Formats: sequence, C-alpha cells, structure tokens
Amino acid sequence: MPAPTHPLGRRLAAEALGTAMLVATVVGSGIMAERLADGNLAIALLGNTIPTGAILIVLITVLGPVSGAHFNPAVSMVLAARREFAVAELGPYVVAQCIGAVLGTVLAHLMFELAPIAIGDHSRTGGAQWLSEAVATFSLVLVILGGVRHAPQAVPWLVGLVITAAYWFTSSTSFANPAVTLGRGFTTTFAGIALGDVPGFIAAQLVGAAVAALAAMVLFPRRDPIGRAGP
Amino acid sequence: MPAPTHPLGRRLAAEALGTAMLVATVVGSGIMAERLADGNLAIALLGNTIPTGAILIVLITVLGPVSGAHFNPAVSMVLAARREFAVAELGPYVVAQCIGAVLGTVLAHLMFELAPIAIGDHSRTGGAQWLSEAVATFSLVLVILGGVRHAPQAVPWLVGLVITAAYWFTSSTSFANPAVTLGRGFTTTFAGIALGDVPGFIAAQLVGAAVAALAAMVLFPRRDPIGRAGP
Amino acid sequence: MPAPTHPLGRRLAAEALGTAMLVATVVGSGIMAERLADGNLAIALLGNTIPTGAILIVLITVLGPVSGAHFNPAVSMVLAARREFAVAELGPYVVAQCIGAVLGTVLAHLMFELAPIAIGDHSRTGGAQWLSEAVATFSLVLVILGGVRHAPQAVPWLVGLVITAAYWFTSSTSFANPAVTLGRGFTTTFAGIALGDVPGFIAAQLVGAAVAALAAMVLFPRRDPIGRAGP
Amino acid sequence: MPAPTHPLGRRLAAEALGTAMLVATVVGSGIMAERLADGNLAIALLGNTIPTGAILIVLITVLGPVSGAHFNPAVSMVLAARREFAVAELGPYVVAQCIGAVLGTVLAHLMFELAPIAIGDHSRTGGAQWLSEAVATFSLVLVILGGVRHAPQAVPWLVGLVITAAYWFTSSTSFANPAVTLGRGFTTTFAGIALGDVPGFIAAQLVGAAVAALAAMVLFPRRDPIGRAGP
Repeated sequence: MPAPTHPLGRRLAAEALGTAMLVATVVGSGIMAERLADGNLAIALLGNTIPTGAILIVLITVLGPVSGAHFNPAVSMVLAARREFAVAELGPYVVAQCIGAVLGTVLAHLMFELAPIAIGDHSRTGGAQWLSEAVATFSLVLVILGGVRHAPQAVPWLVGLVITAAYWFTSSTSFANPAVTLGRGFTTTFAGIALGDVPGFIAAQLVGAAVAALAAMVLFPRRDPIGRAGP
Repeated sequence: MPAPTHPLGRRLAAEALGTAMLVATVVGSGIMAERLADGNLAIALLGNTIPTGAILIVLITVLGPVSGAHFNPAVSMVLAARREFAVAELGPYVVAQCIGAVLGTVLAHLMFELAPIAIGDHSRTGGAQWLSEAVATFSLVLVILGGVRHAPQAVPWLVGLVITAAYWFTSSTSFANPAVTLGRGFTTTFAGIALGDVPGFIAAQLVGAAVAALAAMVLFPRRDPIGRAGP
Repeated sequence: MPAPTHPLGRRLAAEALGTAMLVATVVGSGIMAERLADGNLAIALLGNTIPTGAILIVLITVLGPVSGAHFNPAVSMVLAARREFAVAELGPYVVAQCIGAVLGTVLAHLMFELAPIAIGDHSRTGGAQWLSEAVATFSLVLVILGGVRHAPQAVPWLVGLVITAAYWFTSSTSFANPAVTLGRGFTTTFAGIALGDVPGFIAAQLVGAAVAALAAMVLFPRRDPIGRAGP
Repeated sequence: MPAPTHPLGRRLAAEALGTAMLVATVVGSGIMAERLADGNLAIALLGNTIPTGAILIVLITVLGPVSGAHFNPAVSMVLAARREFAVAELGPYVVAQCIGAVLGTVLAHLMFELAPIAIGDHSRTGGAQWLSEAVATFSLVLVILGGVRHAPQAVPWLVGLVITAAYWFTSSTSFANPAVTLGRGFTTTFAGIALGDVPGFIAAQLVGAAVAALAAMVLFPRRDPIGRAGP
C-alpha cells in the first residue's frame, strides 16, 4: 500500500466501489446462504464466510494501488493518526466508504428481488458482542499494520484470512468496520443488524482499532533492530 | 498475460481445452454435489463453488502463457476493444470457447453416466437474475483488468476468488461467461440453465463487461501518476 | 522441481514418507468425515477434500526439493518417458511409493483404532468410473507438466487445487494415482476401493497420464516462441 | 524466520499475544461452530478448521519477524535442540506461550458470554489419540523444518495447511501444541480436553516432535548436495 498519488476523485471512487462490492458480497452471500441452508446456520455462516474472505483479497489487490483499499473508516483513522494518510482526506474517505456501504446493501437487495432498503432489526448488542467487535477490529488493524511492515504484498491475503477467522471466533461474526456496519444496518437479512445497535458496534470497533494502534507501536516500532522494512 | 505469440492453432486448442475443463468442473461438481447433499442446497453450492474456484486458478496459471486463458467471450471482446487482443482472432477464440464449453458438458455427463447432452430446463430469468449476471461479469472483468495492471502474477487467483465470491453474492450463482452459459444450456443437472434463458444471460453479461471496461478506464488509466505498471 | 541430486536412499525415503502421509490424510480424513457427517455424504466429501488438497501443497513444497515429490507412479513414468527422470530409478521410486501408500493406510487405521489392514470392498468399477480416472489423471499430469514449464514455484498449489476440483468433477472422486489406489485397496472405510477394482483404476490412470503427456507436447513444446521458461 | 534480534520483552509479548489469538480462535470458533451446527459435527469441525488454518497463516506472517512465531513449546524445544534458538530463552518463551494460551481461552469465553475459565471435561485419551498427537506434531515440526530450509517465505502457509489437514486425518483433531493443549484444558466447550488428559497429550506431542527432529536430520541435512538454502 504505497502512498497513493492518484487524484482524490479517483481514489474516492475506488473506496466507494470497493466498499460497495464488499458489502454486496457480505449481504448477498448471507441472503443466498440462509435461503439455501435449510435452517443449518453453521452452513449458512460458511457460505457467508468464504465469499467475504475471497472478495477482500480480490478488492484489496486490485484497488489497493489506487486508493489504498481501506474500505473501512477505522483503518483510515488509524493510518491518519500514524501520519500515513492525510488527515484532510479522512472526511472524504469516510463519506465515500459509508455511501458505498449503503449502496452495496441496495445492490444485494436488488440482485435478490428485495426492496432496495430496509431498517435492520437483527438485535446485536451487549458486552459480549461489543467485546467481540473490539477484538475483531483489534485483530484486523494489528494485522494490517504488521503486514504493511513485514509482508506488504501479503496484505490482501492477511486481511481476507483474519476476517475469515474472526467470522467464527467472535460471537458477533466480526463486523470490524464502521462503514460496513452502517450498510448492514439497512437490511433485515442474515447479515443485518438493528439500526439502533449500530452505534454500539462502531464504538467498540474504534476502541479495538485504537488498542491495536498502540500495540503496533510496541510490536512493530518504526526503527526496529533489523532496519526499516517499509514498503 | 503477455501478448501470446504461439501459433493460432495451439492457442485455440488451449482455449477449447481450458473452457472444456472449466465447464466439466462446473457441471460435474454440480452433479456430484447435488447427488450427495441430501437436499441441502447450501452444501451442494459449496461443493460446486470450491472446485470451480480451484480449477480456474489452475487452468489460468497453466494455459495463460499459451493462449491468454480467456475461456470467456466477454473477456476476449473487452480485450479486443482495448486493442490488447487482435480483433481478427476474436471470432476463432469465441468459436473455440463455445465448442469447448459444450464438450465440457458432454464430458461431465459421460463421467456421471448420463446421456451426453440434454436440453437445459432450469428456468433462470427475470430482472434480478439479469442484474446478477451483469454485476458478476462486471466484477470479473474489472478484476481481470485491474489485476493485469497491478498484480499480473496474481490474476489466476483473483479470477478464482472473485468467482468463488460471486457464486454466493448473486442470485444467479454467477455464470459470468457466455460460452460457459451456452455449455450449461445443455444439461438438466444442478448447474444447468434452460436453453431459452441463455440469450438473456449472455446479454446481461455483455452489458456488465462493457460497464467494467468503462470503469477500468477511469480507475486504471493507462498513464497513471506512478508510471505504467504493465506486465 | 529441479533434477534432484540427493542420494537415492534419501530420495526414496522422501517418496515413501510423502506418499504415506498423503494416503494417511486421504484415508484418515475420510474416516473422520464419515463418522462425523451424520450421513450427509457431501459434507463428508468436503471433509475429505480440504485436507487432501492442503497436505498435497505442504508435502510437495517440503519434499519436492529432496525427491521431486512425485508420490505417484504415473507421474514418475511420464517424467521418465520425457527423459526428465532417470529410467533406472523408476522401479525403486514406484516400489517406495507403493510401500509408503500401504503404510499410510495402516497408519490411518491405527490412529482411528481400526485393524491395521483390511481388504477393500467398496465397489468402484465401470466405464464412467474409468473415464473419470482417466480424466482426473490427465488433468493432474497436464497441470504438472504445464506448471513446471510456466510457473514452477506454483506447482505445489496447482497439484493441491486440481485434486481439490477433481474430487468433485469426477464420479470416482479422483484417485489419479496408482500407488494411492493400491493403498486405498486395503481399507473398508470411506476412501476405500475393492481390491479387485484396483487394476481397472490403475489402467485408466495410465491411459490418462499418457494422453496428458501427448497433449503437453502440443501445448507446451520445449522450444516455444517466447524461449525456454524452464525452472 | 530469521534469528530475531528484537528485545526479549517484545518477543515474549509477541509469543503471548500470538498464542492467545490462536487459542481464542480455536476455542471461539469451536463454540460458534457447535452452537450453529445443529448437531452435525462434521460441519462443526469445518467451522473450527477453516478459522484455525487462516489465523495461523496470519499470525505467523505478522509476528514471525518479531519473535519467530513459535506459539508452541514443542517448536521452541526443537529449535533450541538444533541450536537455532537460544536455550536460555526457552523457559521464558514456554511460559509466555502457556500464559497466552490460557488467556486465549478466557478471551474466547468472554466473547461468548461464558464464565472466564472452566476445568476441561472432554475425555481424550488412549493409544489411538496419543498416536494421533504424535503423528500430528511430527507432521507439524517436519513441515516447519523442511519449510524453513526449502521455502522460508511459505512457512506461514505450510503451518496453516498442515494443521488444516491434521484436524481431519487424526482421531484427536490434532492439538499438536503443548501450550494450546493446556489452554484447551480450561474449557468445557467443543475444543476442550479434560485437564487430566493434558499430560498424556503433551507427552505424545513431544515424542512426535523429537522424531520429526531426527527425520529432518536425515531428509534435510545441513550440508546438502545443492548447497545451503538457508533463509
């Protein structure tokens, strides 16, 4: 993820498109999986997990060189705090991500003959869920920061794989992304979340991201003994 | 995918063989999965998805250096429109792909002791399905064009993974390929499509491919600020 | 897979060990999958496929630099016919592979508290099954020969992925390996084959391998227009 | 895995964190999978396997350059015996791994609203299980030693894939790690083991690791005919 030098408009288009395709995959595969799984939710979650991991690898590889492929306000914020992303662009990035996320839900709904938008009603709240979101976002951000340092070409895979794991090791199925959480607040299908539960999830995600940023300062210091292994 | 310089005959053989093996995998794994899945269609779709993604990675890696490994008229058309593939060879490529696709169905049928060919009767039509095919083909073509630009060695993986995701995030299970759609029009098994529904799917796929070609001009312009990253 | 220069004894040990671990995985995961799958054979086949593909990638990566990681008499024969493997070593390699395969079955049985060896009784015969084995072995050998030419470092992955696909696109679940077939002739569990059906499978596999060797001469000629891309 | 030169404290933190995230994934995904799988244990094991393999790839890639990413006392011991890891650091590493493992179980419990810790009661004992653990740990250590020699950049993938396979080809579902076994001794959920059965598993694992170290001396000698292929 080299510092992108594409015009801002193109980068915002990439962020919006990538986030839209990510959410369309999460929501769409959730609909497909639940419809076909005949009530077995583990099979449904497998059918939701595998496409999500796969599309993350694809989108980050293809759009990373354009916009950095954040697709996630928590990631943009951490990079801005680390001065690896222009603070002035944080606002536009987050707006593009959120618009993309909601459009992704709309697109998934249209592909499955549902109303374009709905108010999410799937209750997801409480301490265990919030802890799950904090842990999931911590894992995601730590992996991105460590991956950019130690294995920059592997970052698309690392992100896809850590989300694949986190779908299962958290009780919340790992949203780990404020924009995606917002987008999933507008569907009543498998991947949905009650709109009123979105703020709690986002708060937990930001806490997890902040802790990961601190942990990365300890684990992956900029001047490490074996020299800078930057991209 | 460097501009291939093998003789045309060898390249057409590679396109026909690759498309045949792709369709044999799609149709054959569909038969196997449906027979074993005991009515749970999500498990059947998993058993159809994983082999399809796997064989795409394999075939594109092995045959890409021979023919470019298009295996897909929509891809050949887009590359021809971009002047990255000789327009004069478009016809022969498409014919080879279509012949290979039908032979792939025949091969799958013979491996499972079915009549060599049947007229597809699985109804797949309507706006949601067409939108799904347009989105799936858009995703496939965008990923190929972005991958060739930014990560040419990863293209086999990107194609396998985007199709893995699209099997689940679309309501049509993502045919995304006119030749494959034709081949699947000649089976009544899990992966089949009513022969009369084939033209609608192909039209939607071509629309999606065209939109992707336009999007790629915006997102991956030939002269980008960090220099040409061509293969 | 560079021409190995390790002493023959070490290479035979690697072939025997690798084939044993491969068969232990095929047979062992078959037992585990069938026991847990509650009668749903598609889930059982998934639980058999994923470990098989995974262990192939691992074993070929780790043991390939020692012995070439054939683990398969059909592969050794094709390489010998192509003068890429010493004909004088063909016999010892095949013997080591067959001994390893049977020991792999024994090991799997012991890990699952079964008698060390049994005479296979799972009937697998007839034209559709033989065609399946020929197609599976054709695919495997073509992928190896094309991979060695065009993407030598990817060969472990290509083999793991083509077998992953072939487990599902053939009606025989793709044995594709005479030594492994022999080893599977000594178990009555999920992955077993009636001992009397082994010769038919092996004959079909050798036909498929021979056809692949011919196809590779056409598709991947030694002197190709873009220069030799050898390892 | 180059010899790490980070301060010991940072390396111990990486070992503890990595082992904690590994165990949280194993235990957490086990809880999730069992809750959702509706009694089909093969689906539950799939939902346990895929996250475990995925997180191993991620953690070893990201933390390997910091601490070596052992996360496993058996691995640390073998490397110390080979003089590839300082014997003086073996104690601290093992302690950090064990603390991390138990904290991983606690974290998984909290994410799923369970009491932080419980005394494991899932009986796992007997010769077949011990043989399974020995074979699983043999496979893991052999793959690490061969991978470090022949394909150091692939080690994260090799470890993830060999464990993916071993979850299915052993009757014990392949703990293959004394620290992880200890951590799993404090849960009564899907991935748990009776605390009293932990010592037997650990003994079997150490035997398997020792045999692998011997086998590696034969298969991957330090001075091999094609020259040292060290990292």
